[in-house]
Amino acid sequence: MGRASHALAPETLQALLSDRARAAPAKPILDSSNDVVNRISFVYGFPDGDSLPAAEVAEATARVMATDGRWALQYGSNAGHAGLIDVLLKKLKRDQGIDAKPENIIITAGGSQALALLLDAFINWGDTIISEMPTWLGAVQAFNNVGASVVAVPVDDEGTDTESLERELKRLRRQGVQPKLIYVISNFQNPRGISTTLDRRRQIVALAREHGTLVLEDDAYFDLRYGGETIPSIYSLDQSGSTMYMGTLSKTMGAGMRLGWLVATPAIIHRLASLKVDGGTNVFGAHVAADWLPRRLPEHVGKLRQIYQRRRDLMLAALEQHMPPGTSWTRPEGGFFIWVTLPEAIDTTRMLAQARERGVDYLPGSTCFADGSGQNQLRLAYSYATDDQIEPGIRIIGEIVRGELLEAGRR
Amino acid sequence: MGRASHALAPETLQALLSDRARAAPAKPILDSSNDVVNRISFVYGFPDGDSLPAAEVAEATARVMATDGRWALQYGSNAGHAGLIDVLLKKLKRDQGIDAKPENIIITAGGSQALALLLDAFINWGDTIISEMPTWLGAVQAFNNVGASVVAVPVDDEGTDTESLERELKRLRRQGVQPKLIYVISNFQNPRGISTTLDRRRQIVALAREHGTLVLEDDAYFDLRYGGETIPSIYSLDQSGSTMYMGTLSKTMGAGMRLGWLVATPAIIHRLASLKVDGGTNVFGAHVAADWLPRRLPEHVGKLRQIYQRRRDLMLAALEQHMPPGTSWTRPEGGFFIWVTLPEAIDTTRMLAQARERGVDYLPGSTCFADGSGQNQLRLAYSYATDDQIEPGIRIIGEIVRGELLEAGRR
Repeated sequence: MGRASHALAPETLQALLSDRARAAPAKPILDSSNDVVNRISFVYGFPDGDSLPAAEVAEATARVMATDGRWALQYGSNAGHAGLIDVLLKKLKRDQGIDAKPENIIITAGGSQALALLLDAFINWGDTIISEMPTWLGAVQAFNNVGASVVAVPVDDEGTDTESLERELKRLRRQGVQPKLIYVISNFQNPRGISTTLDRRRQIVALAREHGTLVLEDDAYFDLRYGGETIPSIYSLDQSGSTMYMGTLSKTMGAGMRLGWLVATPAIIHRLASLKVDGGTNVFGAHVAADWLPRRLPEHVGKLRQIYQRRRDLMLAALEQHMPPGTSWTRPEGGFFIWVTLPEAIDTTRMLAQARERGVDYLPGSTCFADGSGQNQLRLAYSYATDDQIEPGIRIIGEIVRGELLEAGRR
Repeated sequence: MGRASHALAPETLQALLSDRARAAPAKPILDSSNDVVNRISFVYGFPDGDSLPAAEVAEATARVMATDGRWALQYGSNAGHAGLIDVLLKKLKRDQGIDAKPENIIITAGGSQALALLLDAFINWGDTIISEMPTWLGAVQAFNNVGASVVAVPVDDEGTDTESLERELKRLRRQGVQPKLIYVISNFQNPRGISTTLDRRRQIVALAREHGTLVLEDDAYFDLRYGGETIPSIYSLDQSGSTMYMGTLSKTMGAGMRLGWLVATPAIIHRLASLKVDGGTNVFGAHVAADWLPRRLPEHVGKLRQIYQRRRDLMLAALEQHMPPGTSWTRPEGGFFIWVTLPEAIDTTRMLAQARERGVDYLPGSTCFADGSGQNQLRLAYSYATDDQIEPGIRIIGEIVRGELLEAGRR
């Protein structure tokens, strides 16, 4: 009953592929966990390994299995485990000031599935999405997978550039194109680390309404603020029902839980639930999270803020110390990332091999743009590398940049 | 920061929806767990609640968290947790006789995500899929979501009707249509409970090859055989690489784990992993399953076989006792389901309200057909209702059918 290693002829496979499959670049199957263990890793937005609540999760699982095991191990609702929904609604009200009801929320496998479901529900091949650029790498990939035409709006030190947003919306209107979605990471934006100001959030709401389009507010980093004042969410500023609010447990309880959520109008949630044929999202993990969150989240988040604030400060100091003139970087009030802009002569994709050879890893800026620009930029995550790895890692990057600049001067 | 209850105007939402969202019927958000507790439930393919290994899962979680918590709670590979892949490959070799390597497998959120990924990779709107009919309700919905044109092939007491399959393939060829996929549930088919014979499996392989199409072999019920001989999988009979083999832990370890897998050529697996932007499938659950499976699966499956065989026998006996003449049903050697064909006069969708009112639930046959036929048929799951619920439940259904027949005789 074995199987010979005959493979399907590549041309046969090619002939059967969908547009989606043809558009997706063949990614290497990376086990990112293997990738980070032997390097000073500034590359992924991974939560700190040591602070993950492993023992507490074991305890929560024991409690859940003793009291509710027959439902935690059974198929679940397509909207998500009601117990987790209940806990999240309380958290959203307490922390985010978002007042939502069970019919406003759907549980997803991390923010990723929320985004994928939305794209399935709203994007036909060739439809237009407006997105901040640079933005989250996963969103760039997901937009590409569904054949979306992505209109880029830049981000500056006040967040989404709403003047540019307005200009693009007007241009699309003149061209008779209805954009389906504006994608915004409102707090500590990935990859720049900068939040969109209250004034700009209000403008986004007004523009979306005026142009009959939706807003997807991705707020993955909300809980991780290390300074400054909380800014009301776009969702809470929007009385029109156009804004959808996406969150995740990946940056707090742990990315391995693969649990996120989307808050939106009941009509949108119902549409998404109807498209979701998955037997319930991670029913087991959802039960464990529903036990852990009310008991431990606030204290855990307090601990994480201390860790990440310290690392952000260490990284900012190291950049000050080691980066050559002509380099600039953002100074985030929260989240995981610092965005570095190097002199024009530097190509951060090309430079990566040197960094990896010297045991340091970062994310080249071009991966954060749908059009591959950002060649002289890079994203540094300060979330995962340990305190004492940060200065040595930045020193090495600084040395490589200086070397590249010398090299470029000689050409 | 609250939010008024203003909702997006329905016409605004409607204008933004994708073809997929328009095609998906607006399903009620059902919490199926609420649905089953107050009834004798023959409706869902739920594993037996009492036999779910809750205490063992708590122990497995404690072990995983003590030894590998920092990776179980972290982002994972897009192909799935390497430890679970390793365990599954051993299981597939030992039990299924399938010899696969790590590059042949991808871990998915149940069989559902494997199917959804495949459809994304191979189906453009309007593309043709050949499927057994009746078939798994989830597949019918998933095909519908991606706008597939579904060609039905009947199923009889030897499984997939391969004469009909050949006829349809030839017809499509004459019409210049390249079918992308043949979907087959090879063992204890959902909903009929009948396996496809070895001879027919060989014919499926030959026909797929001849017509340059793929086969998706769904083998969700493999482990649950209560009689007869194991039949080699279509996958193991296919030397051409055209067959993909799909499995799940939902019917053994527990549906709440939301873990399944797909075995295929490395080129196909690579394509699927490239489309999969999800931070890894249920990393936490995958680590727990990788601990539990090698320790407990064989013994657990032995226990499940006893339970489900007994329930099948109880249900067959009750049908014999209570169903009126003119009714027929299948006699499965494994799996969860018996398929009942009532006299033509009966409409099982209409009859359902009576059954539910009398505390019994079943699945109307029409939900298992893409074209809504099967009005006089119904699916009975014997997996979830307890031993002592089976006879009373079938008695009630029998009474309702007799009543309906009397009613029909009067019309």
